[in-house]
Amino acid sequence: MNNAAQELRERLNTITDMHIAIGLLHWDQQTYMPKGGIAMRAETIATLSNIAHRMSTDTDMLRMIDAVSDRFDTDTDDGALARLARRNFERATRLPAELVTDLARTTALAEPAWVEARSRGEWNTFAPHLFRIVELQKQVADSYGYTTHPYDALLDEYEPGATKAQLETMFDELKHAIVPLVRDITAKSDSATERARPLYNSFDEAKQEAFGRDVITRFGYDWNCGRQDLTVHPFCISFTSRDVRITTRFDKDFLQPALFSTMHEAGHAMYEQGINPTYARTPLGSGVSMGVHESQSRLWENLVGRSRAFWTYFYPRLQSVFPDAIGDVDFETFYRAVNTVAPSLIRVEADEVTYNLHTLLRFEIEVALLDGTLTIAELPEAWNAKMKEYLGVAPTSEADGALQDIHWSGGMFAYFPTYTIGNVLAVQLFDAAMTAHPTIMDEAARGEFTSLHSWLTSNIYQFGSKYEPQDLIERATGSRLNTAPYIRYLREKFGELYEL
Amino acid sequence: MNNAAQELRERLNTITDMHIAIGLLHWDQQTYMPKGGIAMRAETIATLSNIAHRMSTDTDMLRMIDAVSDRFDTDTDDGALARLARRNFERATRLPAELVTDLARTTALAEPAWVEARSRGEWNTFAPHLFRIVELQKQVADSYGYTTHPYDALLDEYEPGATKAQLETMFDELKHAIVPLVRDITAKSDSATERARPLYNSFDEAKQEAFGRDVITRFGYDWNCGRQDLTVHPFCISFTSRDVRITTRFDKDFLQPALFSTMHEAGHAMYEQGINPTYARTPLGSGVSMGVHESQSRLWENLVGRSRAFWTYFYPRLQSVFPDAIGDVDFETFYRAVNTVAPSLIRVEADEVTYNLHTLLRFEIEVALLDGTLTIAELPEAWNAKMKEYLGVAPTSEADGALQDIHWSGGMFAYFPTYTIGNVLAVQLFDAAMTAHPTIMDEAARGEFTSLHSWLTSNIYQFGSKYEPQDLIERATGSRLNTAPYIRYLREKFGELYEL
Repeated sequence: MNNAAQELRERLNTITDMHIAIGLLHWDQQTYMPKGGIAMRAETIATLSNIAHRMSTDTDMLRMIDAVSDRFDTDTDDGALARLARRNFERATRLPAELVTDLARTTALAEPAWVEARSRGEWNTFAPHLFRIVELQKQVADSYGYTTHPYDALLDEYEPGATKAQLETMFDELKHAIVPLVRDITAKSDSATERARPLYNSFDEAKQEAFGRDVITRFGYDWNCGRQDLTVHPFCISFTSRDVRITTRFDKDFLQPALFSTMHEAGHAMYEQGINPTYARTPLGSGVSMGVHESQSRLWENLVGRSRAFWTYFYPRLQSVFPDAIGDVDFETFYRAVNTVAPSLIRVEADEVTYNLHTLLRFEIEVALLDGTLTIAELPEAWNAKMKEYLGVAPTSEADGALQDIHWSGGMFAYFPTYTIGNVLAVQLFDAAMTAHPTIMDEAARGEFTSLHSWLTSNIYQFGSKYEPQDLIERATGSRLNTAPYIRYLREKFGELYEL
Repeated sequence: MNNAAQELRERLNTITDMHIAIGLLHWDQQTYMPKGGIAMRAETIATLSNIAHRMSTDTDMLRMIDAVSDRFDTDTDDGALARLARRNFERATRLPAELVTDLARTTALAEPAWVEARSRGEWNTFAPHLFRIVELQKQVADSYGYTTHPYDALLDEYEPGATKAQLETMFDELKHAIVPLVRDITAKSDSATERARPLYNSFDEAKQEAFGRDVITRFGYDWNCGRQDLTVHPFCISFTSRDVRITTRFDKDFLQPALFSTMHEAGHAMYEQGINPTYARTPLGSGVSMGVHESQSRLWENLVGRSRAFWTYFYPRLQSVFPDAIGDVDFETFYRAVNTVAPSLIRVEADEVTYNLHTLLRFEIEVALLDGTLTIAELPEAWNAKMKEYLGVAPTSEADGALQDIHWSGGMFAYFPTYTIGNVLAVQLFDAAMTAHPTIMDEAARGEFTSLHSWLTSNIYQFGSKYEPQDLIERATGSRLNTAPYIRYLREKFGELYEL
């Protein structure tokens, strides 16, 4: 290996190792840490984050990056590493230290205020915090710099290369297809509550856990390089591709949450486990963007886990695990239950069809807040009006409306659209995999997923962050982000399910 | 607070936070980390150790230490912190950074190799790792410097101020008392196997766990600031006094290991939990030496947990938990069983009398390895010969011989003698506590341990590392390390038990 490349790689190894340790401190806090440790853990995480940030902004880094960029094209591993390192360095150095501190302090106060506001449904308790956060987000956007709109600067953090204009096109296409589809389904449909009823019953948690393990083992999740624990909110965390952990939670009276969140998190995890192991402990060694990451979780959760083929194999097995609950529920009834469409108030409980209308609403509100065309005081009313317009429902309390998500309180602006990017990309990728291996669904009906897992490993997983997100998608599917396959998928699947 | 003191404290907070993160990386490796993560974890631990070492050796530290030393006596908290910081700085600056990294990486790989070697009883699997570790230990001793023997340099890490010569005196006094005592017991005794038989039976692991939890909760272990997990080798690890974890392992056919190791590790943990909370995230915030630490684990395990008073309260309760196994075993038979003396192969299962002969053997082997008078290849044979000489028994497999302990795989040389220092100090401290509160054993017979726990908190726990080990002991008991009370204790207790 070239000396300059070696030097840069070692420096990045050190910084990445600090982030691995910070990740473990977080994982431990959410899984096993005794309660008494909370205050001290916050101090330790702050210390390590501070050290990692100082390392990342060391000007010596730039010399190393330049030395490698001069020698290697960005389509080599070393060149890609230098490109990523430069991007991270520039972003880290553009934020003034006072702004970082101010953001940390503001969000640290905003999160508990949000918890309280949501529990009481009181917008005014959270409003002044959100006002401050929006002001700071504008400063962040100004610090990063942008040509067209501050949203672009924030979005680039989660989805490198994406722009507000692209999202507007994407959401516009989706809105025109999905809003009428939801109306047709709602007009045609029997009661959604009735349709989903088989999922509500008594389901022993240990048996749910064993069934979920079997499913994701068959998908290709590698337990030798992973594990599953219990947390309040399910998540996936990767230290290196050799240690990628997932968490879940069980509801003994409702089958849906654990089962689908296990598949979802395993989707994220298999992506991380499949990354070229030589990328470990460098910025190349993790998924390339939030949107691409979400495409992997959604693909396994929805395109596989909510398909006829999947349940052809797994439904008889699930029935034998829970004979009392679903022994006499026929296949078609169960398949319809896991694909129930119902306009609802809460994003995280939304079905495949209505989900993107929740993210669209948030995208439009975030843009308007940054524009200054919407004030914090007007936000709840705007939220409710959009809910009514897109989904035909509106909350009676802000707890089920503008206060439902934790993201804004943590300063996560321009994050929500990546969920929809993931939905759209998932179908593009699945179609490409099916073209390469037309028997994927026949295999799924036998509980086999090797062709799909291999195709994703070869075309997505292995590359980690080597290519720009849309370049990676184009290499894998022949085109960049494109809503058409996703819209066709929704129309076909739910057209059949609802006999439209 | 004085500015200089504040500055030093903040610097030490940063370094201690790095060690807390390193501690968590180790804890995780031994409890929950998937196997696949081993190699990468070694790298991450090495990186963080390296960074912490560089911080500890930053010459700017010396300026801060001098500024505080000039203003504060060592009997103030700030002065004590400066004294400890100076000691740590001097030790750290003497170790070359490459040696620290090399040690961290070598031991991170040696530990899993030891696990595998022990499970197969294959010395040769572990030998090359141990060879490398001994070579590194010699380099460590040379780097620290010493006047008489490299052992002194290593010992000072675990037992500040102690020397190989002092250990030789201590072991000499003990050997002269214990070897004849063991002979008398062996000559006089009925079969040790017969005597210990009540402990071998079917003991449900979950019930063992619940009983152990009850015992240490009554001792004063704070579960809000701690937890217990399963590992191959039980240990205690403290992040701050607010998060002190223990581990154990269960043998469903043998009551002894989990029960007494739980009390043992809780003894370590209560020491850490009892430290003045303002010492957290500084070098003051942990136990002062391994010997003093071991005195706390031994005190609770042996002087409390193997006493008549303890079992007066707990034996009826244990019988009601395991009626099939011990329902018809009378108190005296059970009390004798948990105090069975029998020369045996495994240190951690050794009784109070023979235990110190196991540490003596290891002390002598470590000295010989450092001298170069013993090679790694010769070690198993030397081990077996000494076992024969001191205890009259020898292992048939290295799994029960030179491979039984994890310590050497972690680079812990000159550590074993601190177990015997702990045994000796435990009796000195217990005598002093009894003088202050003569009803301690009456309370124990009612399942109450408040007076003992309070006395230890006031006289040992709270001080953390504020005083030198032997100064702390002298403050608490009126004298420094002294084998006489321990020898008297052994003779009285086992004289009565074996009617000598």
